Amino acid sequence: MLLLADVPCSAAGVFTTNRMPSAPVLVDRRHLRATGGVARAIVCNSGNANASTGKPGERDAQAMCRLVASHVGGEARQVLVSSTGIIGRPLPMDKISRGIATLASKLARGRQADADAARAIMTTDLVPKSAHRAIRLGGVPVQLAGICKGSGMIAPNMATMLAFLSTDAAITPAMLQAALGDAAGAFNRISVDQHTSPSDTVLVLASGLAGNRTIRAKGKDWETFRAALADLCADLAYQIVKDGEGATRVFRVRVLGARSRDDADRIGRAIVDSPLVKCAVHGGDPNWGRITTAAGYSGAAIKPECMSLRIGEVCVFDRGRPVTATLENRRTAKKLHRLMRATEVTFTLDIGMGRASSEWLGCDLSRQYVAINADYTT
Amino acid sequence: MLLLADVPCSAAGVFTTNRMPSAPVLVDRRHLRATGGVARAIVCNSGNANASTGKPGERDAQAMCRLVASHVGGEARQVLVSSTGIIGRPLPMDKISRGIATLASKLARGRQADADAARAIMTTDLVPKSAHRAIRLGGVPVQLAGICKGSGMIAPNMATMLAFLSTDAAITPAMLQAALGDAAGAFNRISVDQHTSPSDTVLVLASGLAGNRTIRAKGKDWETFRAALADLCADLAYQIVKDGEGATRVFRVRVLGARSRDDADRIGRAIVDSPLVKCAVHGGDPNWGRITTAAGYSGAAIKPECMSLRIGEVCVFDRGRPVTATLENRRTAKKLHRLMRATEVTFTLDIGMGRASSEWLGCDLSRQYVAINADYTT
Repeated sequence: MLLLADVPCSAAGVFTTNRMPSAPVLVDRRHLRATGGVARAIVCNSGNANASTGKPGERDAQAMCRLVASHVGGEARQVLVSSTGIIGRPLPMDKISRGIATLASKLARGRQADADAARAIMTTDLVPKSAHRAIRLGGVPVQLAGICKGSGMIAPNMATMLAFLSTDAAITPAMLQAALGDAAGAFNRISVDQHTSPSDTVLVLASGLAGNRTIRAKGKDWETFRAALADLCADLAYQIVKDGEGATRVFRVRVLGARSRDDADRIGRAIVDSPLVKCAVHGGDPNWGRITTAAGYSGAAIKPECMSLRIGEVCVFDRGRPVTATLENRRTAKKLHRLMRATEVTFTLDIGMGRASSEWLGCDLSRQYVAINADYTT
Repeated sequence: MLLLADVPCSAAGVFTTNRMPSAPVLVDRRHLRATGGVARAIVCNSGNANASTGKPGERDAQAMCRLVASHVGGEARQVLVSSTGIIGRPLPMDKISRGIATLASKLARGRQADADAARAIMTTDLVPKSAHRAIRLGGVPVQLAGICKGSGMIAPNMATMLAFLSTDAAITPAMLQAALGDAAGAFNRISVDQHTSPSDTVLVLASGLAGNRTIRAKGKDWETFRAALADLCADLAYQIVKDGEGATRVFRVRVLGARSRDDADRIGRAIVDSPLVKCAVHGGDPNWGRITTAAGYSGAAIKPECMSLRIGEVCVFDRGRPVTATLENRRTAKKLHRLMRATEVTFTLDIGMGRASSEWLGCDLSRQYVAINADYTT
């Protein structure tokens, strides 16, 4: 996949927190630092992650940027690079080099080109993922668009979340990075299998061609832009969970009343990562003890006697006690089972100890997940 | 299960760190505090965990202790209680009460009684688990024995690890607690599905009937006793992982060269908890990038260029670089696949940053795990 902007753009990125970052992540960080946040192109291959490949891997990632620059003009450091696929294998540079030459000769605009780009970065994603938002900044229409991939693995270890966003908004690199830093949080509050990839990357390019007054500080325009970018990221994040490996259902965890945002996130993450919760969702089983006890081992401050839990709108645990009437009543028990068997179910956990909240998205754990990750061996 | 000692014993316990502890855990902590570490009996039911049941649940757990005392004599606070099974349902006290009366009338000694006890605390464990050690303290023969259950679930949420240990050693409650605190660490370094139960409990009773000189301080005898207790716990812990839900293989993670013990544990836990590593072990796939990147997101201090990984004795990642020769060589690649398909495989990860180490045990993730936890709904 080769994404080329008409002009050098303000550029920003957020990257994996994994301490074994892939070579492309190292190179992108370096390029963004060297240019002060300017880029014109993003190149991405799928099939090989160029991770755990040492210095030779870094040289390959840099070579990809140089190859793109040699074909489309401009500086190699204004090219950003991503790779997704198996870990620990050298990139097949012959193939990569031919691929970049072909892409450079076939650059195109429009719906079909966008769809092709979204498809090109897929690994075992079942569907391509893209989103679009339109806003006005000072009366000027501005577009935001993005494509992403994530949560598929055919050759094992394709566990990478990549999102490439673009906009014609005029905005400085610093303000763009600030907006992205906030908006990309949506990607941090999803989990398919809790294994943080060494390649996770969200990049955004802003060309300025919309002609709005350049956003240089956090004001009304920045807030409008940030909100649209956050909305775009949330849309893409949802698409990733929905297409999670082997997933048949999405569940949403709303944590309310936590003592701090950190605690709320700890609880949300423990619940969406719990294999037992994920299996209960898969089986459509309103087995709520798995949710309250996941909060219990999350490390966050909780007191059982302050905690309440709703499945959909039905309260099953009220300040430390099971709502026995609901659970033993035939009609409400049936309703709970129905709620649990829907395509999407929401758990609202009120910690009752403060005002902080957080919302997380997870998917169920199915035999298909095991099949994808155990049976198709390298 | 009712375990009755001939005399009041020194008693010690370690309990779940889950902040939603079950009612029996609360009651046991209170009893050990009130008696200064003296107990004569342990009673345990399976099928209902008496967890997330609020104050009524605590009253039920206390009632179980009173019932035992009324049948066998002695004080209720010298009885310890455990429950394992579904969360959030009131205990069926009629049934429990009849059960305790029956057990009290059928108390027995010997091999068959021990085997019956190990079987009585099972939920979906496939095999009963017990271990035995004999040592000498100042020339006096001393016995240590234990039974445990763990990692089965038929009715969902039977996720409880329970171990009951007994010895005829003479040792003060304080020294017994110190030995147990250390030895029970073996149970903390295993993982079937990372969901810390609200009921996890390890209890030990020491009757003193062996007649050794009572251990009152940390000296040679304490060290001998502690080592035997640790060995006993490690044996039981291994049996739990081997009988993990749906498990077909055990894997051992040796973390070496970490900056601190804390870091070594963080890395070990991240690896044994990773669904991707567990699936690779299930598929017999030497997909080592999943192991190195799990270390990468563990939160521990690591540098890729210092890290090395061996599968069995075969080095696949050497100070930041894949050992391409090994991985591409037909013979060694075959050997790796063979190692991965054995009943037990060891991963040795050298972090290369210090001298701390840690050893963890995990089991694979199979379709059967999903079936056990998704299909048999409540």
